[in-house]
Amino acid sequence: MKLWDKGISIDKKIEQFTVGNDREIDIHIAKYDVIASKAHAKMLESIGILSSEELERLLGGLDVLAQQIEAGTFEIDAQFEDVHSKIEFELTKSLGEVGKKIHTARSRNDQVLVACQLYYKENLQLILSKVKTLFDTLLDLAETHKYKLLPGYTHLQVAMPSSFGLWFSAYAELMIDDVYLLNAALKTVDQNPLGSAAGYGSSFPIDRELTAKEMEFSTLKYNVVAAQMGRGKNERTIAVALASLGNTLARFAMDTCLYMSQNFDFISFPDELTTGSSIMPHKKNPDVFELIRGKCNKIQALPTEMVLITNNLPSGYHRDFQLLKENMIAAFEELKDILDIFNYSIQQAIVKDVDLNDDKYKYLFTVDNINTLVVEGKSFREAYQKIGGQVQDGTYKPDTSKKHTHIGSIHNLSLDKIRNKFPV
Amino acid sequence: MKLWDKGISIDKKIEQFTVGNDREIDIHIAKYDVIASKAHAKMLESIGILSSEELERLLGGLDVLAQQIEAGTFEIDAQFEDVHSKIEFELTKSLGEVGKKIHTARSRNDQVLVACQLYYKENLQLILSKVKTLFDTLLDLAETHKYKLLPGYTHLQVAMPSSFGLWFSAYAELMIDDVYLLNAALKTVDQNPLGSAAGYGSSFPIDRELTAKEMEFSTLKYNVVAAQMGRGKNERTIAVALASLGNTLARFAMDTCLYMSQNFDFISFPDELTTGSSIMPHKKNPDVFELIRGKCNKIQALPTEMVLITNNLPSGYHRDFQLLKENMIAAFEELKDILDIFNYSIQQAIVKDVDLNDDKYKYLFTVDNINTLVVEGKSFREAYQKIGGQVQDGTYKPDTSKKHTHIGSIHNLSLDKIRNKFPV
Amino acid sequence: MKLWDKGISIDKKIEQFTVGNDREIDIHIAKYDVIASKAHAKMLESIGILSSEELERLLGGLDVLAQQIEAGTFEIDAQFEDVHSKIEFELTKSLGEVGKKIHTARSRNDQVLVACQLYYKENLQLILSKVKTLFDTLLDLAETHKYKLLPGYTHLQVAMPSSFGLWFSAYAELMIDDVYLLNAALKTVDQNPLGSAAGYGSSFPIDRELTAKEMEFSTLKYNVVAAQMGRGKNERTIAVALASLGNTLARFAMDTCLYMSQNFDFISFPDELTTGSSIMPHKKNPDVFELIRGKCNKIQALPTEMVLITNNLPSGYHRDFQLLKENMIAAFEELKDILDIFNYSIQQAIVKDVDLNDDKYKYLFTVDNINTLVVEGKSFREAYQKIGGQVQDGTYKPDTSKKHTHIGSIHNLSLDKIRNKFPV
Amino acid sequence: MKLWDKGISIDKKIEQFTVGNDREIDIHIAKYDVIASKAHAKMLESIGILSSEELERLLGGLDVLAQQIEAGTFEIDAQFEDVHSKIEFELTKSLGEVGKKIHTARSRNDQVLVACQLYYKENLQLILSKVKTLFDTLLDLAETHKYKLLPGYTHLQVAMPSSFGLWFSAYAELMIDDVYLLNAALKTVDQNPLGSAAGYGSSFPIDRELTAKEMEFSTLKYNVVAAQMGRGKNERTIAVALASLGNTLARFAMDTCLYMSQNFDFISFPDELTTGSSIMPHKKNPDVFELIRGKCNKIQALPTEMVLITNNLPSGYHRDFQLLKENMIAAFEELKDILDIFNYSIQQAIVKDVDLNDDKYKYLFTVDNINTLVVEGKSFREAYQKIGGQVQDGTYKPDTSKKHTHIGSIHNLSLDKIRNKFPV
Repeated sequence: MKLWDKGISIDKKIEQFTVGNDREIDIHIAKYDVIASKAHAKMLESIGILSSEELERLLGGLDVLAQQIEAGTFEIDAQFEDVHSKIEFELTKSLGEVGKKIHTARSRNDQVLVACQLYYKENLQLILSKVKTLFDTLLDLAETHKYKLLPGYTHLQVAMPSSFGLWFSAYAELMIDDVYLLNAALKTVDQNPLGSAAGYGSSFPIDRELTAKEMEFSTLKYNVVAAQMGRGKNERTIAVALASLGNTLARFAMDTCLYMSQNFDFISFPDELTTGSSIMPHKKNPDVFELIRGKCNKIQALPTEMVLITNNLPSGYHRDFQLLKENMIAAFEELKDILDIFNYSIQQAIVKDVDLNDDKYKYLFTVDNINTLVVEGKSFREAYQKIGGQVQDGTYKPDTSKKHTHIGSIHNLSLDKIRNKFPV
Repeated sequence: MKLWDKGISIDKKIEQFTVGNDREIDIHIAKYDVIASKAHAKMLESIGILSSEELERLLGGLDVLAQQIEAGTFEIDAQFEDVHSKIEFELTKSLGEVGKKIHTARSRNDQVLVACQLYYKENLQLILSKVKTLFDTLLDLAETHKYKLLPGYTHLQVAMPSSFGLWFSAYAELMIDDVYLLNAALKTVDQNPLGSAAGYGSSFPIDRELTAKEMEFSTLKYNVVAAQMGRGKNERTIAVALASLGNTLARFAMDTCLYMSQNFDFISFPDELTTGSSIMPHKKNPDVFELIRGKCNKIQALPTEMVLITNNLPSGYHRDFQLLKENMIAAFEELKDILDIFNYSIQQAIVKDVDLNDDKYKYLFTVDNINTLVVEGKSFREAYQKIGGQVQDGTYKPDTSKKHTHIGSIHNLSLDKIRNKFPV
Repeated sequence: MKLWDKGISIDKKIEQFTVGNDREIDIHIAKYDVIASKAHAKMLESIGILSSEELERLLGGLDVLAQQIEAGTFEIDAQFEDVHSKIEFELTKSLGEVGKKIHTARSRNDQVLVACQLYYKENLQLILSKVKTLFDTLLDLAETHKYKLLPGYTHLQVAMPSSFGLWFSAYAELMIDDVYLLNAALKTVDQNPLGSAAGYGSSFPIDRELTAKEMEFSTLKYNVVAAQMGRGKNERTIAVALASLGNTLARFAMDTCLYMSQNFDFISFPDELTTGSSIMPHKKNPDVFELIRGKCNKIQALPTEMVLITNNLPSGYHRDFQLLKENMIAAFEELKDILDIFNYSIQQAIVKDVDLNDDKYKYLFTVDNINTLVVEGKSFREAYQKIGGQVQDGTYKPDTSKKHTHIGSIHNLSLDKIRNKFPV
Repeated sequence: MKLWDKGISIDKKIEQFTVGNDREIDIHIAKYDVIASKAHAKMLESIGILSSEELERLLGGLDVLAQQIEAGTFEIDAQFEDVHSKIEFELTKSLGEVGKKIHTARSRNDQVLVACQLYYKENLQLILSKVKTLFDTLLDLAETHKYKLLPGYTHLQVAMPSSFGLWFSAYAELMIDDVYLLNAALKTVDQNPLGSAAGYGSSFPIDRELTAKEMEFSTLKYNVVAAQMGRGKNERTIAVALASLGNTLARFAMDTCLYMSQNFDFISFPDELTTGSSIMPHKKNPDVFELIRGKCNKIQALPTEMVLITNNLPSGYHRDFQLLKENMIAAFEELKDILDIFNYSIQQAIVKDVDLNDDKYKYLFTVDNINTLVVEGKSFREAYQKIGGQVQDGTYKPDTSKKHTHIGSIHNLSLDKIRNKFPV
């Protein structure tokens, strides 16, 4: 029976609809299903369900698959709905009956859950390491350019003096807050869920502490119902951590795009990091930073997706959870690239000498003028009025001599204190 | 000139538009502005801008205001645009010139930022303490009802046996993950921002470590630009932590509403916790839990609001940030109530004896039947087919004898392990 | 029994929790409950449940309340949980038994639903009328400033010439798309839901077409289950329409704030529309437009809230719906103000003469130079390379003579065509 | 220089980063770029930039590509960054110089914008047609099952009688509201943007009305800046319309999953539409409807993504817009499948005979009992108390005899009125 417009049979279409693009996504978690399967097999042996010889053979078979995955030759062909059935098939093909035994005392839900958590854990650690790299880069740039002044804006109006040192190191310090969230996400996924089975545990006497140790989880998600409810909770928590980092990077990229505009002209990049236009021969566009901003903004939408897919669902597994993987994994892969590209590109930044004597910047120093008067004994109110009067009648002359000496200010960036605050 | 429809002059309408409802919201942060003002005054004295006698008088004046705030008699009348101008006015009225001096070396932006952070910090700690109370309650309920079985569902289909013990303690354990996020938010706001002034620091030699110590901040947001960019970052981070907790509570409430339905009938509540209907005399509705769910879902929308108000704004202060306070503070106040009400109500829950021998639940035990056969030596595949055959031909008889012994399962809830995992 | 921290009894706290701030919110829908009650009473009389004399008295009583509401003297005191119980109480107090009769064949849910829809309908019409006013203002400003050129940007880089005429009228034309959504929302709420009762209709022979006619609804939401499910659907639909308009206004405000920056200096506003700084005497900040932007961005978060409160709830009424009103009504009230303030403020805009001969703008005209060569017979590729070469070697001379003559371009704004496209 | 972890050169990685997966996505818009290119070519001939012979050749070349696209043999190989450069390359390869001429008086931005709008327009029309099909199906099911009663719930508590007729037709009627939004989106994209070039028009005397006619756009987005700002506005508007439809379908799916639970057992599906479990031989899971729900909930997150990518960006093109296409097009493709699958599956629904005499449903009829007493002359209050008393003391006997006769109620579904309301 062919009902559908493109000549696809109903069954085929329903199968496609339910499988979705799991085959492509699952390539990312194949490695982790092998790790979890090895841990599960060892545990089964420890409780007498597998013999030590069976274990040996299973571990061997799983290692072969691990090598294929590592080498990029592992494929999930169309006859399998996901990576888990593919792996079980391969084991059974090469090892016979023992290949089927590995599924004892676990369920598909179990496998997806633990494999995703292992992927999440490793990739959060990768993200954290790349964040540290970028953090160091930004502090180095702050050190390098610490004497280069910038106008500081409030309300996008010229306000008070700032500097490239302040600007670069501000974003470094803000990333520390993102690390707090990334670490919270890491803690959330660093709890062994394996053994939850279909979400209510198993009547086999499985040893969940052993699998936790094998997979190097710091602790267990003890309660099997709680473990299962990690589907969704893991993704929501990670999504907000990635989104928070995305927000920081996107704002930096926004500044960068603005500062590259001819109307600011604070910063530029070498030609190979900008793009031209098919119709305007003069253009040098900051596409890399616009795409960093856009991709980070897209990642900021991810928490809403993760919430909406799972919200108001009663406890227990629902097939909806299958849909959490796709954009979650895509966000990880994207964010790793973004951090690499960002770190590489920002080092190429050409920092301009901004002329703060330009007429449009002259009022940057009014507060410094006022403070001079205050130190000389005037009340703040009087001083404010005096300088305000000068601004009005055009007699104002900027006092550019002031140094800002307190912690975290232009002339005392305290980069070491910021560096030391980065969580280890 | 009267242009507007309700006979309000333009200036008035623009003033209302810009002030918004700050006067009402600011009541929540009045206490914290006083705390920060005291710390700032002490610091000004330490660097010689205030005399010790002036400091004494300012502290006295601020203490008077603190008492009014505590007593609930402090009001921000219509002539003031916010709490900060009100406090400065009161100090100047009672102390004369010295009342104005306190504004030296700080800006309004500084004040709002630090007062909000103090509010956030204290209220996050309150939330954490209420979470701990509810956590303990749920574990106690799990202990009390650990032998009461429930059907466990996957896909909302009867799946495998579960229990009230598992159900209550699952939510307790899930809240630990929420605490990870709440603690991350706490770390984010536990950094002294004072001294950022308009976002670029001050030419006065202020001592930011002293104010940090006075206000009991664990560290400083060192970089003044980073400190200022806390406007928005603080709120986004808190919002996701509150939303995560909200998600956990909302799902519990969803379960509760479902389980109270006549079609499940697993749980009920005393009359005073349910409401009737104006037209149906038989109704006992779970309004409290529906409102917990709804209010928690509303809180889950807060992160999107916090992101949208701040996203893609270049660095530096923007007036838009004024709008962050309103729903952020409302969410804190609401969530504290929710936790109280939840903790009180759930203790009143009447846990029913669910008859798992009811026909609709009989297949709950098929996996246990299969496992029995496996333990007796059948392969899982054979066993699955045998029991499946019995289900088909109507000869299936549930094996209700099985105990689930592994960690975190029905008969081994591991409540102590969960209790010990709660972060201190 | 006093359990709660602030000395409030449990019952009181639970009551507060369930009532929320309905009393304050419901002031906005009081007028519409009276209108719906009058229609319902007339219908009850038409089917013989009320006598004509009873109807007369009820209409009289309701008119008295309508006058109080109109005069602003109507209040919902603490003994009532919402406006509906207050109105029923007042009718019964003044009219005796007949006051109670009005509740025949309807339920509270019915009342909230129809009153909200009437509020939504009237306020959508108000918004549409204010949009039209602003649309006309923007077209007038485009006409006034049509010869004033602006640099046009892509990637925030100087790109090609634009004009204030194009800028103002672009936002006018974009608002037409917002009107399409506002009209869709209007159609959604312009369907009489009354008669749905608790969501499943009534066994009384009510005449829903009569009440539709009385309340001037264009049609009925026929199916009573569908009518009830309007709770949430109405709000989601309106929220996206208001958010779409909010997006348009927010982007205009973003442009305005950027163009007021000293680095662009394309536009300014009289002092009374800008604000100063407590520490910087030179500041003239665009707070009004920043708040327009911020408030519109907040409104853009509303759809997420409306979705999250209602998502994945099975059909049928849930108490969660009570929470939809608050921010929905707040958004309407805010947006009406925003449109008034925007329309008033933008007319005060001081449009600068931007000097396109300034060095930073000189490449605006490269495409025009190229096109001249193309018209003279060169291929586009050759022409591009020739002008590109001039840019490189510094010999480029802008060709500022070109006129853009096609529809919708700088020198042919087609304002009449845009004006005619506004949906009637 | 090889800096990156996987041995990819920087340039390569930056290129991948900026191109993203445009090559795969663009396959969906290839057809529309050809249509727009043909229209543009005809216009160029009409204003004398192409000769009629050149036009002939270009149209021929474009038709060849159109056939390849139709046949599925068109591919965008790795040397091209998008479909537009691929098509230009192919034309130049086969036609020589004239292939390049087609790019006169348009820009890449122009091409992406118009091709996307054509895709959106055609696919919105497809969605609308599939909605109509499902609408008819649901009305037919309502007609078929109109006498089959269901318990109606409020607060998930048994409330009043409902029916399958009401249930099916409620969702049909709700989809009419979705059509209002879909039509608003259709109007938004049914405006020719071509001629906007880089966003500021062209100095060539292009004829935008001619291209509008050729591409069958109903009108023009006249203002070239407004046309360009359609990037983002189109996607936001479409996203909310698709999300609204998604919400309706997701709620229906939620009902379906709930009603399939053994605890409700109102509905089931044939085996081929349900799935089993790898460990529980008795399971028949509603995966299709869970995935409909989940996929629709994912689509409901799309508006947030579209807003976040574009929010607070000043006017003018930004590269961020490139990112709008991917999930927008994915949502269209997914939603078309969802509508097909839904329409097919729901027709297979096995509607059960629900026994409303079951004890748990007996209070469904209390309102009908009350109304009987009211009709007999009792006041509603007295009647309510009498029936309430019977419920309390256990003497209540359901009155199942009542007919609900008013428009849109159980026994008067008014399906024709609903059918006639569907917008043409």
